[in-house]
Amino acid sequence: MNAPTHALDLLPPRTAPAELLAALQAHFGDRFSAARAMRELHGRDESPYEVPPPDAVVFCDSTEDVAFAVAQCARFKVPVIPYGAGSSLEGHLLAVEGGVSLDLSRMNRVVAVQAEDLTVTVQPGVLRSQLNREIKDQGLFFPIDPGADASLGGMTATRASGTNAVRYGTMRENVLALTVVTARGEIVHTGTRAKKSSAGYDLTRLMVGSEGTLGVITEITLKLHPLPESVAAAICFFPDVGAAVNTTIALIQLGVPIARCELLDANAVRAVNHHDHLGLREAPMLLMEFHGSPAGVQEQAATVQELALEHGGESFQWATTPEERTKLWTARHHAYFSALQMKPGCRAITTDTCVPISRLAEAVTVAADEAQASGLPFFIVGHVGDGNFHIAYLIDPALPAEAETAERLNQAVVHRAIAMQGTCTGEHGIGLHKQGFLIEETGEGAVALMRAVKQALDPDHILNPGKIFRR
Amino acid sequence: MNAPTHALDLLPPRTAPAELLAALQAHFGDRFSAARAMRELHGRDESPYEVPPPDAVVFCDSTEDVAFAVAQCARFKVPVIPYGAGSSLEGHLLAVEGGVSLDLSRMNRVVAVQAEDLTVTVQPGVLRSQLNREIKDQGLFFPIDPGADASLGGMTATRASGTNAVRYGTMRENVLALTVVTARGEIVHTGTRAKKSSAGYDLTRLMVGSEGTLGVITEITLKLHPLPESVAAAICFFPDVGAAVNTTIALIQLGVPIARCELLDANAVRAVNHHDHLGLREAPMLLMEFHGSPAGVQEQAATVQELALEHGGESFQWATTPEERTKLWTARHHAYFSALQMKPGCRAITTDTCVPISRLAEAVTVAADEAQASGLPFFIVGHVGDGNFHIAYLIDPALPAEAETAERLNQAVVHRAIAMQGTCTGEHGIGLHKQGFLIEETGEGAVALMRAVKQALDPDHILNPGKIFRR
Repeated sequence: MNAPTHALDLLPPRTAPAELLAALQAHFGDRFSAARAMRELHGRDESPYEVPPPDAVVFCDSTEDVAFAVAQCARFKVPVIPYGAGSSLEGHLLAVEGGVSLDLSRMNRVVAVQAEDLTVTVQPGVLRSQLNREIKDQGLFFPIDPGADASLGGMTATRASGTNAVRYGTMRENVLALTVVTARGEIVHTGTRAKKSSAGYDLTRLMVGSEGTLGVITEITLKLHPLPESVAAAICFFPDVGAAVNTTIALIQLGVPIARCELLDANAVRAVNHHDHLGLREAPMLLMEFHGSPAGVQEQAATVQELALEHGGESFQWATTPEERTKLWTARHHAYFSALQMKPGCRAITTDTCVPISRLAEAVTVAADEAQASGLPFFIVGHVGDGNFHIAYLIDPALPAEAETAERLNQAVVHRAIAMQGTCTGEHGIGLHKQGFLIEETGEGAVALMRAVKQALDPDHILNPGKIFRR
Repeated sequence: MNAPTHALDLLPPRTAPAELLAALQAHFGDRFSAARAMRELHGRDESPYEVPPPDAVVFCDSTEDVAFAVAQCARFKVPVIPYGAGSSLEGHLLAVEGGVSLDLSRMNRVVAVQAEDLTVTVQPGVLRSQLNREIKDQGLFFPIDPGADASLGGMTATRASGTNAVRYGTMRENVLALTVVTARGEIVHTGTRAKKSSAGYDLTRLMVGSEGTLGVITEITLKLHPLPESVAAAICFFPDVGAAVNTTIALIQLGVPIARCELLDANAVRAVNHHDHLGLREAPMLLMEFHGSPAGVQEQAATVQELALEHGGESFQWATTPEERTKLWTARHHAYFSALQMKPGCRAITTDTCVPISRLAEAVTVAADEAQASGLPFFIVGHVGDGNFHIAYLIDPALPAEAETAERLNQAVVHRAIAMQGTCTGEHGIGLHKQGFLIEETGEGAVALMRAVKQALDPDHILNPGKIFRR
């Protein structure tokens, strides 16, 4: 990543005055902390930015706690920054203008499972793995699956997706209703448990992906899906990433309802081999999963196997037992941290573009070639069924030249995606780093509308200020 | 419908001054009309309201035409009301505060089919039947299918859905990107052709369903779907509507990927029999369609047939030829107008609630019982796979007591849907009639956020004012 411009170019912090801190301490008691270690823990995420931590942290147990904290901060125009699992990648939870971190991790209760409606209501601190554990016995699952074991509040706020999105959609499609605390500390409800609605502005979708800048999400109603009758996973190796992606393009164009379709380049396979002792062939690989009836799964798999062969795919292998599948998917989810271990002390700079599916092979191939030519170690993983891939450049944080190279490569990937009518971010969000890309992608006019919405809903800019766009 | 309160309680019209009309006439030439007949044509839709027509009509050929007209009207703070096919049901295009109607029906060009990406870009005046005709040869279709042959601009503006939504989603899920003219006459672009994105606020979803009140939609990029390899339709008759709906609930809970699942009560079947000479048994009926591979379609159908039998379904009949299927679906789409013919001179008052699927049988059954007890003729059709149904009361417009009865029944249906955590409108929109229901459904807090967004994006309230909520 380039020198973290926004971190270097901060607005003056809006320091929490003693009167505010006292009011918060009086309400939250030992759930209030101004200890340096606690503040620092809440002032970092997986992004490379280093900015001063928030002035205090409050651990909220309820929507009312959140409303209280926001109302108090609003009195003093002091920022509030919601904190879930801390796994965001783009600086979303950094206190770039100071303020108070609202730790929502204790709001981790599954409020109600409405199994007969395929819906569930959760608090924002529920982790995705926890939700799936709690609903499994009812024959249901929640498909959205970013790599990290993120909180559902954070996933809602960044419009997250992951490996199952190709079939089940993203948080955009799977959030039905929200409880939100507004900038004035009022509690509002958006949406209903009906599957569809034409009732006024889609406030739910406005909040999904708003990165904490329009309201603090304190309850989420999600769609659930019946556990598929049959599940099979398969891997297949290809002579190059282009062949793997072209197989994906073909199956999407045919309308195969594949549940997961992940690309790992040879470098990513090497990393997971090393970390998880898998002994996979170190070549570009598709890791796929099929959901449906036994016959439907067989049919999908046969189609895909045929397409893969046509594109030079080899060694199609099945993983039908849950243990084998879990091993492969665990390895996939470890890819990022596995790769970091290949270059001790390194940091990864990760792109997140998503392009129209027909352009994906070109996007991935050119990005790989450019990365190869740069000499930086890199790896590629991708939710390729959606047109979304991540290329991660491994840099030595002590060598600014490597960060500059990675940023130059990153910019080329993003410019190309935008030229292909794609997006600079498929699932990670804008945060601090991609604000320039957002303008390039959507134009000043659309960003002006976003600013107008922000101004209308948060005139004092207390809700996670400085994210998505600058004032 | 009750006495059309909003029509009786209008804000003073903001009459277009001569200077504005002259500017529009100079630009639009013979595409400008202030003729009474033309104005009246553009001041009516399928709603029962009667309000004065707009002051003028301009026929736009391009985004630039729209931008010009809006900018001119903005100068004088005169309303603009987009007009597509005129098939909206809730008074969406009535000039309740005066103003200029922007007729977009000549913007009826399919701009680009990107078949390899399963996307298409259209102008807002393209009708859904036209789009499907133009893309059929490429093996693609656009699934959203309200009863009327609506324009895609209008369908976007009302977040329309229809018979295929149970499988393919609504306009909410199928719009990727928009070109929009803002209240100041500026042209902005929202979204990209990427399938997913986390790039800032979801302006696309904010515009979808905004009923022309936040911007004028002048170009729409939509998702397309491959024509299924195999299609089969089936009908099945049930002893009562509850049994038909319970069959639907069971198949949704099982996760059967049914493509269409429509309820017609005995009255609706009687009407389509009469209109389309079908000779169907006059009993509650499910009309279903299955999409997939030949084996997949067989499998789905076998599952559904078994479920139907368990719920007392009888006479399961197949329609496998395209001709038979078309005949049945055409009849379904005629249901509304067929039923109107059963009571000459009548008007239909139609509900549009959508509830969590497990509550649907109760919602439909109680509504049917109440309607039966009222003595008014009625019929029920429903996109029951989504939890959405319409009960239409046939009233004599000359008898105010009938309108009052229908409105009382309507209110009971809506109150019940909201108590079930459902919505007052699954697909028709709020328009003029449901503004009170919107507040009941979502609360004053959420409506206050909607008003704030409106105020931010259209401070002079020139974009289709008076719809969704009052100022």
